[in-house]
Order: sequence, then C-alpha cells, then structure tokens
Amino acid sequence: MSSDLGRVNFSKSNSEVFNPPVFEAFEGAGPRAPTTRSISVLGVDMLVTDNNNKHNTSRYENTNLIVRRNKEFFIIISFDQPFNEQQDNVQLEFMIGSSPNENRGTYIIVFIGKGRRNGRWKGRVIAMQGNDVTVGITPDAGCIIGRFSTFVTVITNVGKQRTPKNPDTDFYVLFNPWDPADVVYIPRDSDRQEYVMNDVGVIYNGEFNNQYRRSWNYGQFEEGILDACLFILDSGKVPLLYRGNAIELVRQGSALMNSQDDDGVLVGNWSDDYSIGTAPTAWTGSPEILLKYAKDNGLPVCFAQCWVYAGVLNTFLRCLGMPSRVITNFSSAHDNSGNLKTDITLNEDGTINRSLTRDSVWNYHCWNEVYMRRPDLPEKYSGWQVVDSTPQETSDGLYRCGPTSVIAIKEGELSYPFDARFVFAEVNSDVVYYQSDKYGNTKIISVDTTNVGKLIVTKRVNSNAYEDITSTYKYPEGSDMDKKAMQMAERRGVPARDYTKPPETGVEIELQADTISIGENFKLTLNIKNQSSQNCTLDVTITGCVVYYTGITSSIFKLESKTASVDPWKATKVMFDVTASEYMPYRVDQSNLFFVAYGRIQETGRALTTTRVVALRPPELTIKVTGTPRVGKDFVVTVSFRNTFNFILKNVQLRLESPGLISTRKKTYDQIAPGGTVQYTNTITPWSSGKKVLIACLDCATVRQVTSQLEIIVQ
Amino acid sequence: MSSDLGRVNFSKSNSEVFNPPVFEAFEGAGPRAPTTRSISVLGVDMLVTDNNNKHNTSRYENTNLIVRRNKEFFIIISFDQPFNEQQDNVQLEFMIGSSPNENRGTYIIVFIGKGRRNGRWKGRVIAMQGNDVTVGITPDAGCIIGRFSTFVTVITNVGKQRTPKNPDTDFYVLFNPWDPADVVYIPRDSDRQEYVMNDVGVIYNGEFNNQYRRSWNYGQFEEGILDACLFILDSGKVPLLYRGNAIELVRQGSALMNSQDDDGVLVGNWSDDYSIGTAPTAWTGSPEILLKYAKDNGLPVCFAQCWVYAGVLNTFLRCLGMPSRVITNFSSAHDNSGNLKTDITLNEDGTINRSLTRDSVWNYHCWNEVYMRRPDLPEKYSGWQVVDSTPQETSDGLYRCGPTSVIAIKEGELSYPFDARFVFAEVNSDVVYYQSDKYGNTKIISVDTTNVGKLIVTKRVNSNAYEDITSTYKYPEGSDMDKKAMQMAERRGVPARDYTKPPETGVEIELQADTISIGENFKLTLNIKNQSSQNCTLDVTITGCVVYYTGITSSIFKLESKTASVDPWKATKVMFDVTASEYMPYRVDQSNLFFVAYGRIQETGRALTTTRVVALRPPELTIKVTGTPRVGKDFVVTVSFRNTFNFILKNVQLRLESPGLISTRKKTYDQIAPGGTVQYTNTITPWSSGKKVLIACLDCATVRQVTSQLEIIVQ
Repeated sequence: MSSDLGRVNFSKSNSEVFNPPVFEAFEGAGPRAPTTRSISVLGVDMLVTDNNNKHNTSRYENTNLIVRRNKEFFIIISFDQPFNEQQDNVQLEFMIGSSPNENRGTYIIVFIGKGRRNGRWKGRVIAMQGNDVTVGITPDAGCIIGRFSTFVTVITNVGKQRTPKNPDTDFYVLFNPWDPADVVYIPRDSDRQEYVMNDVGVIYNGEFNNQYRRSWNYGQFEEGILDACLFILDSGKVPLLYRGNAIELVRQGSALMNSQDDDGVLVGNWSDDYSIGTAPTAWTGSPEILLKYAKDNGLPVCFAQCWVYAGVLNTFLRCLGMPSRVITNFSSAHDNSGNLKTDITLNEDGTINRSLTRDSVWNYHCWNEVYMRRPDLPEKYSGWQVVDSTPQETSDGLYRCGPTSVIAIKEGELSYPFDARFVFAEVNSDVVYYQSDKYGNTKIISVDTTNVGKLIVTKRVNSNAYEDITSTYKYPEGSDMDKKAMQMAERRGVPARDYTKPPETGVEIELQADTISIGENFKLTLNIKNQSSQNCTLDVTITGCVVYYTGITSSIFKLESKTASVDPWKATKVMFDVTASEYMPYRVDQSNLFFVAYGRIQETGRALTTTRVVALRPPELTIKVTGTPRVGKDFVVTVSFRNTFNFILKNVQLRLESPGLISTRKKTYDQIAPGGTVQYTNTITPWSSGKKVLIACLDCATVRQVTSQLEIIVQ
Repeated sequence: MSSDLGRVNFSKSNSEVFNPPVFEAFEGAGPRAPTTRSISVLGVDMLVTDNNNKHNTSRYENTNLIVRRNKEFFIIISFDQPFNEQQDNVQLEFMIGSSPNENRGTYIIVFIGKGRRNGRWKGRVIAMQGNDVTVGITPDAGCIIGRFSTFVTVITNVGKQRTPKNPDTDFYVLFNPWDPADVVYIPRDSDRQEYVMNDVGVIYNGEFNNQYRRSWNYGQFEEGILDACLFILDSGKVPLLYRGNAIELVRQGSALMNSQDDDGVLVGNWSDDYSIGTAPTAWTGSPEILLKYAKDNGLPVCFAQCWVYAGVLNTFLRCLGMPSRVITNFSSAHDNSGNLKTDITLNEDGTINRSLTRDSVWNYHCWNEVYMRRPDLPEKYSGWQVVDSTPQETSDGLYRCGPTSVIAIKEGELSYPFDARFVFAEVNSDVVYYQSDKYGNTKIISVDTTNVGKLIVTKRVNSNAYEDITSTYKYPEGSDMDKKAMQMAERRGVPARDYTKPPETGVEIELQADTISIGENFKLTLNIKNQSSQNCTLDVTITGCVVYYTGITSSIFKLESKTASVDPWKATKVMFDVTASEYMPYRVDQSNLFFVAYGRIQETGRALTTTRVVALRPPELTIKVTGTPRVGKDFVVTVSFRNTFNFILKNVQLRLESPGLISTRKKTYDQIAPGGTVQYTNTITPWSSGKKVLIACLDCATVRQVTSQLEIIVQ
C-alpha cells in the first residue's frame, strides 16, 4: 500500500495528459468480431470559427476551439455510414489531465445513440446529413477551466473503439460571464466589453494631489497567453478538481502572481536596483512577462511592483473569462500589526524615527477586483471582490490576499474569508504621529483620520477617465453609517482605536505645493491658522526626504527651521524654497518627495505635525503616426524623447507595444546627452481593423515612469 | 535599502534573545556622573513558589516563574538604599525575542517611581521594607505567550543603568482560563481541572459496534515539555507578534503537529511498515515524542496516526493554558470532493472497485476541541472549536484544519473560517454505493444517510467513561432542525445532495457479528427482511477484506456466495463462517475486518448492498502493583503478557509510563513463543502523592493496540 493512505494525490497538471487506448476489449470478449452493429469514425470537425464567434472567443490568437461554460457548442462527427440513434452506441469522451476520473469532473462522457444517460455535460444530436452527425454539447456551469482532449468512442459487445488522440480536436473551456448560471455572470454587456474583452487599460498612480496614469497592455487574447495562464496553474500545482471553482482560482491566482512561496510569475523588488532584470517601471504590458515565464518554464520574472502584479493578474483573470479590473487606492495603509493604526514615530527634532516606524502609508497601491457570486457566503456579499497579488503580508501562511467582498469591507463585516481585515485597514486606518524622547517615552502628537483610503479609482467603462469608487468601500467619513461600520468591525475583532487623542492646540498647520516636473525648483508653503485667542509663536522644522511609493523614506535632503508669529484668530504662510539641486541627487524610482513639518508652539510647549507627498511629474514622451493605418498596409510610428535634464541618461530602454497590432518592441540607447533627442521609428503592418492603442515607455536608472499612449483607428 | 521594503520581517523565535546594553548613555550627556539621584539594584526575587501556586502553574517541572495573563504577580527588587517613589525613576523592562519592540508587544516597559505612565502591562508598588520594594505586575489579557527576560532599569539624567541579563529572572506567560478577560476563559472549575490541568486522558478507538479505549499521557507539566512547545512555535517560524492570539496559535498548532509543509512534530504513516521508527500504536503518551523532537532540533518524529496527532496537540494546547480535549468520531467521512457524499463504487460482482473509490469512511477519527471565544466571529460561535492536526486535506494550501466553531457546524453555517465545510462533511456525509458496469456505466445501488458521524465522544470530566457529544455537532437525524441545518449548509455553498435515490426494493439486508478477539473464529450473519408481497430469491456475495482504520481496504481474504429464499413479509438469516485461518495471515495494524454484502434479487433484478466493520479485540496486558505506593518509598510494578496466538511474536516493544511518576520506560523482547509469557518488573520511587495512572503498551508488527492502564494512589 502506498504511504498516502487516507489521502489522495489529485492530478495537478493540465499539460500532463492521459492517452487512452484506441481499443479496449471487454473481459471475456475474446478476439472475435463484434456481433452488434459497428460503425467507424472517419473524422471530427470542431467547427472552430463558428463556435468561437458564438462563444465570444474569436479574438484569442489560437487555432483551437475555445468555448464558455454552460453554452452549447457544435461539432460534426463523420462516420463511414449513416448513424442510427436507436442502434449505434456512441459516446464522446472529454478528458483533462493525467488521470481522468468521472467523479472529479476530469473525465466527461456524453452519450449519443442508444446508450444515452444523464451526465454532467449535456449532449444531443442536432442533425444528420449523410454520414455526418452534428452534435450539440453543453459543458456544465461549474465545469473545470482548461484544455480538454476529445475522443469519439464506439461501443460494441466486444469492446470500445476510440478515435486516436488528436491535438486539433483539443478545446478550451472558459468562464462564462454572459451566462446567469455561471458564478462570474455580469449582467451588463458594456461591463463585459470592458472587464472581460478590453485588452488594454489604464492604471492610475502618483499620489492623491498629483495623479498620473499609464496605459497597460493586458493582451489576454495574444498568442500563447491562454496557454501561459494555464501553465501558471500547472506550475502552482493547483489540482484540476478545483479549477472550476472561481473562488479557488482567484485565491490561487493571487498567490501565483508573486514568486514568494511558490515560484510564481513575478519577483517583487522595491530596492531601486534592477540591474539583473527589468525595472518594474519599464514594462508596458503583461504578455511580455507571461510569455517569458512560460518560455523559461516557470522561472520567476524580474521585477515587479504593485501595478505590475495587478496588471498581470488582470490579464490572467480576463483571459480565463472572469470580469476583473485594476484598482488604485491613493494613500493605502500598510498596517503591520492589524490594529487599524498606522504608527509614525518622530524623534525629538521632528525627523522620522525609522527604527520605531514600521508601518507605512503607500502613496498609492494597486489591486484587482473580480466580479463574481460568492456561493460560500450570504448572498449580499456577491459582486466585486478584492484580490491582491502584491506580496505585502502573508495571508494564512502564504503571500496572497482575497477574494474578499467589497460590500463586506464597507459594512465592517470582517468575519468572512478571505483577508477582509487587511483590506479594511488599507482603506480605513488612522495615521497616528508619535514622538519619542530619549527616556523611551512615546506620546501621541497628532492623529489623522482622513488621510488613508482618500480616493479609490478604476478605469471607467468605455473611457480612459477614472471612476471614483471610494463610496463602494466606505461610507462618508464621520457619517452614521460610517460609525456603524466601524462598530461592526470592532464586534468582528478589530481592536478599538482607543488611544487618547492629544488635546486641541488651537493651531492648524498644512503643507502645500504645486504640481511640478522633475528637475524644477518649487516652493513649499506651510499654512498656519491660529484659531485661539492667544498669540502663537511657532518654531517649525521641515524635513524633506525622498520616498518610495510604498511610503518608505530614504535619504533626507532637506532640514530647515523657521519661526513664525501668528496673532489670535489669524493665519499666515511660511515659504520654503526647494531647489532641484537639493533633491535631484537623491531621487529614487518614481520621484516622490516627502515633507514632514513639525512645529512647537513656544507659548504652550505643544507640538503639532503634518506631512505632504510631492509626486514630481515625469518628462514627456511623444508618439506620432505617419500615414493612415490600414489593414495590410505599412504605416510608421515614431516615439520621440528629449533629455531636458542637465545630466546624461545612461542605458535607456525604450519599449513600444500595441495589443492586436505588435508585440513588444525594444530599443536601447547607451546614453542620451543633456538636451539630446532620440527618435525610435517603427514600421507596422496591421492585420486587423478597429481601435488600437500604442503604448510606449522609456526607462533608465535616473528617470523612470516616462510613458505615453496613443489611440489609432486601423481602417 | 533592503529588499523587503514595504514588508517587515518579524521576529519569529522565542529562543533567539536580545541582550540590551547594561548602560545606555543619553546623547550629549558625556562621561560624567549623574546629578540626579541614582540608586542601584542589588537583586530581583521572582517569588517563584508563591506566584506559581497562585497562578495554577506549580505542577510544571520548571524552576522559573510561570504566570498567566491578566493576573498580578509579585517580585521583590532589592536596592542599595530605600526606594523613593517621588524621586527615583525606575522601570521594569520585559523582553521577548531578538528585536523587542513596544508596538509589537515584544518589549514591555512597566514604570515604577516618578516616570510612571500607562503601558500594556500594569505595575504598582505594593510594599517597601528597608531597601526592598515589592512590585505587582499584571500582563495584559492579550499578551504574547512565551518566555520573557526581566531587566530593572534606573534612569538618571545621563542615561539608563540596566541589570545584566539573568536567566533566573526569565519567566513564562501562559493563557489564563481562570480569567474572564482571557479569550480561553472557561467558567467551571471542574472543566479547568479536566481540560487544562489533567495530564492523563483516555482516547477512544475501535469502531461504532466495538469501541475500545487507551490511556494517553499528555504530560504537559513534565520537565522540558513547556520549552518543547515553545520550540515548536520557533521551529514553525510563528511570528512572536501573533503568539498572544489564541486563534492563530490553535491554527498554527494544527499545522505544526504534522511534518507536512513545515517539518512539524510527527510524520504520518498508514503503511503498516514502521520499521524505521516507532509504530503509531506503540506510543503511550506525548512527552516522549515532544522531547525527542526538541532534542533532535526539529527533526520530525516517526510515526503517527490520528490519535497520536490528537494526543500531542492536546498536550501542546493544555501546556500553553488552553482548555482542550480529544474527540473521537466513529464513522468519520473523508470526503475528497467536498460534495457531502462518500462514493463507494462496486464492480459487477459486488467487490469494491478501488480505482473508482477514492473517498473513504474512517472507522474512527480523532481530532481536538479547544474552548475559546471567537472575537473574529459573531458571538454565538464562541465555545468549543474543532482543530485537527492529522494531515488529511490541505486547508487553504497547507495541512491543517480549524479552528472551526462546533455550533456553526451544527447549524450548517459554513461561511466562517476555518474549514467548517470539511468538518461538516466528516460528520454529515451520505455514503452512496455505486455499481459500475464494463461499459463505464455507473448507477447508484443504495444510499446510507445514517452511518457517518454516528457517535462523537470524548472523555467525561473527572471520569474515564465517555461523554456522548454527538448532539453538539448535529440535530437528530431527520428532525426539522436537522433539515434546517442542511438547507443552511446548501445556502453556504455545499452542493445539494440531489442524486436520485434508487427505488425501494422492498427487501432489507443487514450484517451482524459478535465482538470477538483476534484469532477467534466467528459467524457473520446476514439478516434478510422481505417487506414486499412478492417472493424473494436473493443471490448474495460476501466480500471480506482487511481494512485500515482509515477505511482503506487492503487484501481480500474471503469471497463467498449463497442463495436464500424469503417468503413475502418474512425474514431469514444466512450465516457465513469466518475462521481465524482465513483472516489472520492478512491482518494489518488495528485488526479491522470489513465485509461487503452484495445481493441481487432474482425476481426483480434489483441490487442491494450493506457493509459491516468488525474490529477485533486485541489481547490483554496486565499491570500489577506490589506494595503500597508511598512518597519516597520503592514499590514494584509488573506488566505481564501471554502470547495466546499460535505464532511467534517478534521484536516486541513494551512501554510503561506514568505522568508525575516515571517517564517512559521501554523493554524489547526479541521474541515471545506461542503460549509464552513475559513479565516486565519495575521499581518506582514516587516523589509526589496523589492519584497516578500507569500506562502500558505492547506492540509488534503482528499484534498492535495491546494497551492497559492502572490507577494508583500514592500515599
């Protein structure tokens, strides 16, 4: 007996396939000719073009049949003589994986002819014409997603005669958002066109006050992508048995996009050193990444940050047929201790104490939402579900997050799986500023309850503008419903935020800055409002540091103190000059500057603090088209860039891609001198008409996030 | 910057400790003498005996202080001069792990004297006598469980003066089931005495009709066990931050008892070949296993089956202070596909088709329950929670199961974490018998809705009899509440059991056997009841196989057919003789025989089936005491066994242990001839009085589960 008694090793690969015998004799039948009627199969036509059109799968660059669950598809079986429904015993067998089993849904039998009985999939004879029989087959609504093999088997009294294995008759079964019986059903067609069929999207970044965007090629229909998505599941050893379960696929998808635990698709890197791979900022879409992962046989691809994870997960989900979208949460809390507070501790001089500050507020964080029913939960929690593949925290032992119901987050109903608590903290944490003195005493100096989860957005349906979906996650701050949701969260085990807020100082401070480009000087304004009847003399220190989009601060480049005097009930402004020469040498990645203002009121000894992120606008990249794009005719695309900096850009990588038009094209420049211009000229021959998007990105170690996109119509 | 930007590596070990500096100068203070008052600490007395008595921890064989959460303990600090609360600034520092941090609860500061402020733990000066100060300290009710270091620190204007690290002042903090503020609070003292303080228990096994029991030494107070339990958490890299969270500790405990995924404590083996380790049936308690695991620095111990996992997990839980008990579920379904059916497929001749039968019904299965509040769930789901460390199925990617609320299982409310669906199936599945013909056609021949979860038991409080707790898991079969619970389960995503039951045959069959000992011949009776108005001629085939307690069948040893004729409205019996010579050569492990009766009614062609497990009674082992056991005086224990079989027993291992009396003693016999007797004589010198249990077990490859226990009173 094997050592796994009491346990079962399920088949975990779609690419390992079973090859059933072409003839299976019945026991005791002996080597004699059948005495019952025996017809032979000459051929099977999967009617790929017709079926794919009807199943909304014709855009996949794939020569095989691709169908959706619970929708009938048709095939024609050609026999050597006319088929007789009353006399002939014929069955269609569909198999997936290396050990097909009827109970596990990996071996499907559809009977036509006299042996007919009910199975998971429905089958019926539609028409008979000469020796050809048209059969309609309907996979069940919970069927496994993946690539099946097709066999036609004739049963006689001596045994089973099967058609040999033929890859041309293999077909894929996908989720069906068009069908109310499928858990991923989404009612509006405009939603399906955006969330399932749109292969290009917009991902928002920057920070609350300076929002930027970049286009992303999801490319779910591109050649090899569907196989790459199934390969990810094989590589992650996801049992075939679970591959019809949308919840399981979403949860596994969230784990398998990151390389932690399971050698998933992408290696995260927030170090500013990407020399052994591609910088997260340099990618323009998912196909390049997915194809590399599949080609390298599951070697994780270097490197990703949150929007790359979200972009690739979105491709995976849409490719398998699940409605999904990429979300950006501006000011996203990363609450390490799950206490719904983001703790930021300052030293006595107002600078950040990095050893005591382990939580952080990300300027923005991207995740995904999937639209689906949750049969495992009470009905009202169906709908959009959060899923996040960026490796932030382990969820129940592995790096993954979700699916968790957006409605449950809004209501503070955090008991249900998966990871509701973590997502709730990302959009609801308070930021608490502490000050620590040399005796080890720590006191709260201010609490900001409004900063986190300030704005949650996604690309609008059929538009590149953003849709503000903050209200799907939260009731208005301070409303009765908001209080109710917080109380519910506390009843579900979230610790009450029972810290004592510091007494009001009667003085308010706020930092302001204009939107400016990298390399510009600018002014930082501290607005001081004295709302007390006392004079206020404020000693204020500004600390300026560069900051990753994850809120983790790096080098301090500025430390300046001023004193301001404000009469009772008056306001004033204190200006600080920030020059490019101060911050340029220290910039990392996405050029975000972080300022902390720490003030101490001389009259009362009270402290107050405020912060401001300034996300510098990256330089411009231009895409131009020469000639009118027509199917089968060449046209020219030029991507141009001018180095407006006073330093040389080295090892510059330029990427251009367009889903349905060209796959990623790359050009490298050893250096671009100050004031120098580069022009990357491309000739493209379209093979299909319609709206296309050209996406370009320029990237080098000193300047990142230089992106551009251009919509064109191919005639 | 490190590569884990945006993520934090938490301290995951209690054994790696931080050694803080003895003197920490304040910046700018320079090398000068303090100008403020400065007293010195001469010594710290942890008052171990007094505190341990009050904290119900005096039974731990450990020289250090052991306290429970949210209960005050007292220490005496001796200074070089009288302490002045108004002038002296003294703090107690308690640290755990290698990077103590106040926010994470791994660094606790309790101020006494003038710097006093509120922290997580409360501290107060109780008394001052000469230079001695008695301080009362109360860890918070959510505090981390583990071993803390103690430091007393005097603060002056130039810096902090700390007592050096001293293992004698280390102390352990445990859960507190006596305190209503702790999540593991259990109100009745009799429950606490059984579920926390009892270090010996009874585990039930056998099968529904033939129940047996064995004693188990939990030994949670034995020397080295507490450290071994903390070592398991270190070895499993459980972040210290989570070690105050009972839910997390229970879930981690369930994962860490098995070696799958994480090199946990025990290697599962259901193969009948245990030659490279100890047979699961040979163990008599947990301490031997836990001490071996700790001594071998985390090398998994060979071998375990379910009761060993449950026994060791029980020790782990009780040792850390969580009320827990071992449960036995007779007829426990192991439903691989989560469809609430256990599918058993027979061949045309009535024998089991092993390739189509992957589910199984275990004759019994053991798991644990922990009593605790579930702050993460609605209040009513607090109370007993199922936790199971036997590696049956992965739960969300890892081998573990629970905690899941017993009340939620009963109500069919399966949405809540963790693994409610799996446990629900273990106690509620239907057993569906299929028959498969050579054409691949499968039909249902009978459905048994009452077999699974027939009886769920645990040791009664303060008694060795069992308590039937079936009604805490299920409403009575067929009651309205039962139907309601099933409907709720379906609303929570459990597939409806919508298979078509076969039509009534009008004939009932049932197998019967008496309880007999291994090596005896016996009669198997098939009762046939004809409840129709037709004559019934029944062709019946009996298949007899040996079966593991996991329900997995091994060799077939008997296949016999008979035909019986039953008049309308009459009953009859058909007898089958089963001889020892038939089954003895094939027995495995626990000597369970499994019989399938498959009948075919000649008149109607209808099929019917029934099964029966016969668990053979193992031979006897005798424990005798000579002399009256008194503290400090020798007495003699004799364990004797007679080989009543007609074959030689080889490599026989005999174990004797008694918690609080002796640790495991082992004796090996190369062989015991047929009719031969062995006597294992032991001299024991008790060091404490009261009730003790002697537990003995004899084990060899051909005869297992030979156990005995004897209660004695030490005067």
